[in-house]
Amino acid sequence: MNNKIMALLGAELPIIQAPMAGVQGSELAIAVSEAGGLGSLPCGMLSVGQIVSEIEAIRAATTRPYNLNFFCHHMPEFDQHQHAKWREVLAPYFDSLDIDPAALPNNASRLPFNHDIADAIEPFRPPFISFHFGLPDPLLLARVKGWGTKVVSSATTLKEALWLEANGADGIIAQGLEAGGHRGMFLSDDITTQIGTASLVPQIAHHVDVPVIAAGGIGDSGGVKAAMLLGAAAVQVGTAYLLCDEANTSVFHRSAILSDRAEHTALTNIFSGRPARGIVNRAMAELDYMNPLAPTFPYASIEAAPLRSHAEQQGRDDFSPLWCGQNTSGCKAISAGELTKALAKY
Amino acid sequence: MNNKIMALLGAELPIIQAPMAGVQGSELAIAVSEAGGLGSLPCGMLSVGQIVSEIEAIRAATTRPYNLNFFCHHMPEFDQHQHAKWREVLAPYFDSLDIDPAALPNNASRLPFNHDIADAIEPFRPPFISFHFGLPDPLLLARVKGWGTKVVSSATTLKEALWLEANGADGIIAQGLEAGGHRGMFLSDDITTQIGTASLVPQIAHHVDVPVIAAGGIGDSGGVKAAMLLGAAAVQVGTAYLLCDEANTSVFHRSAILSDRAEHTALTNIFSGRPARGIVNRAMAELDYMNPLAPTFPYASIEAAPLRSHAEQQGRDDFSPLWCGQNTSGCKAISAGELTKALAKY
Repeated sequence: MNNKIMALLGAELPIIQAPMAGVQGSELAIAVSEAGGLGSLPCGMLSVGQIVSEIEAIRAATTRPYNLNFFCHHMPEFDQHQHAKWREVLAPYFDSLDIDPAALPNNASRLPFNHDIADAIEPFRPPFISFHFGLPDPLLLARVKGWGTKVVSSATTLKEALWLEANGADGIIAQGLEAGGHRGMFLSDDITTQIGTASLVPQIAHHVDVPVIAAGGIGDSGGVKAAMLLGAAAVQVGTAYLLCDEANTSVFHRSAILSDRAEHTALTNIFSGRPARGIVNRAMAELDYMNPLAPTFPYASIEAAPLRSHAEQQGRDDFSPLWCGQNTSGCKAISAGELTKALAKY
Repeated sequence: MNNKIMALLGAELPIIQAPMAGVQGSELAIAVSEAGGLGSLPCGMLSVGQIVSEIEAIRAATTRPYNLNFFCHHMPEFDQHQHAKWREVLAPYFDSLDIDPAALPNNASRLPFNHDIADAIEPFRPPFISFHFGLPDPLLLARVKGWGTKVVSSATTLKEALWLEANGADGIIAQGLEAGGHRGMFLSDDITTQIGTASLVPQIAHHVDVPVIAAGGIGDSGGVKAAMLLGAAAVQVGTAYLLCDEANTSVFHRSAILSDRAEHTALTNIFSGRPARGIVNRAMAELDYMNPLAPTFPYASIEAAPLRSHAEQQGRDDFSPLWCGQNTSGCKAISAGELTKALAKY
């Protein structure tokens, strides 16, 4: 590992565990950091209090560096009209699962990074923060960088990589189309602009000076080494960690990953409002993967969350977001420390 | 290079030049074969007579092995009703380009491999044939293999790879989503099943015994080596050859590849009826990339061909299929021999 990337990550190994909101907390991050990788805590769906207590848990368990991940989308107003139309589409499902849509809240669980969060985490001077959907506004970004925190964000196109470098990112996560979960795209919402890891990484690496972290489809040490040859200085791996002991991945999710169904993932906006890659399930198949009626991010989760929980209570993953990348060949039910070390034997 | 892949390719270098119908003939294939790679002749749009004379040209120029590429789609009947509807959609373009759709033919230029072609090429006992869209029927395949010809075909999913191996392919081209031109998909027409090279190659390599040839997004020697690490025994490279001296790539096509427009490719069915990756142009943007009204492959070319030629006569690429992969960083206006040798320095 060269000095530049070591200085950026602060970790021994050039392996970042991808932050995966909803399926992991501090336990997975700690295991990865302790093994020499950079463990990540997904903060986008946590309250300020939860963020603080999770950071405290990490710091109590390890002295190694860790990564906090935040969304930095623009938060639109709740649009009653949009939800009324979407609820018409979903009416048969609400009926069959005995859910009263009139009782749903008007707010969503994914909030962008803001000064309140910054106030709460400032005392920890977190070593590393990764953002998704661009970067926070310049003042907020300057505040974070003023702590000595290294800041990276995801680029899904060459344009986004150049934008991130010009706007102060210390490194760029080149998120190939293979990656599970939310696309980090922020300069375009046209999903046909999204390209595969093998194409994205060399194009970005040729054009930026900051270190490039490859993400998407990397599941074993061969994949890590291949990414390095394409120009990456480090990798970010998510899907391969989904079956690890320290992940909170549900039984529904684990079982889908282990089945043939994992061969067919798709980008869908029906669970959150933004395109994210998951294993195709009933809701995706019946509602279309990318449905123009789905409410704006993050508000689509208002409808998706109760549908999911009610269906899961009946033992079905019909409405569960089964986030997953296109390559599950590296998924193993082992400890995250063991997986991290295996990934780094390249 | 290991013995297995050397025996399969017959070439010195594990580099197959991807067959690219419409932009190259024997000249490119000869240059690549002479440099030690496996040059390919795309035969899918040639008449039997043209195929024979191109093979004769190759054999006159080199004693090295070469590859013939054929489509093996099922040929549907011409559907007058389908075309009538599509011509309604295209009416404004026909008008503005002064084309009379009533004068268009009822046949298309892409024919599947058949016994007539086999009769014509049998005397040459071609060393290598690659198919696209599956394999020919068992009798025809047995006939070809009986010549000692090595046969490979493209897989775009793990399922297709297993099918090809079970049905007699001597090797499998793992065609990642990054690849330019036609998707080789043949067991599904759902484009969300298509996955990136970095995900596809390891999954196929883990599950088949025949050699895997990686395709899609590979444009330089780092990409070649990366593909090997993912489990490929050889690579197939297309896009990087598009600017080569020996390619017939049009000025429209070359200039699009060299522009920023090449950052945005998409799968489109409007030019042929099957999804193929090209640089987004006016027709794709205005007609939708994947248009359900586009006639069945290969008949969509009936309308696309005159629109293209008339627009090109006016100096515009509005209707030109600008086939191109997602990674143009390896495109160089050099000789194909030089490019082949550079790719192999991994």
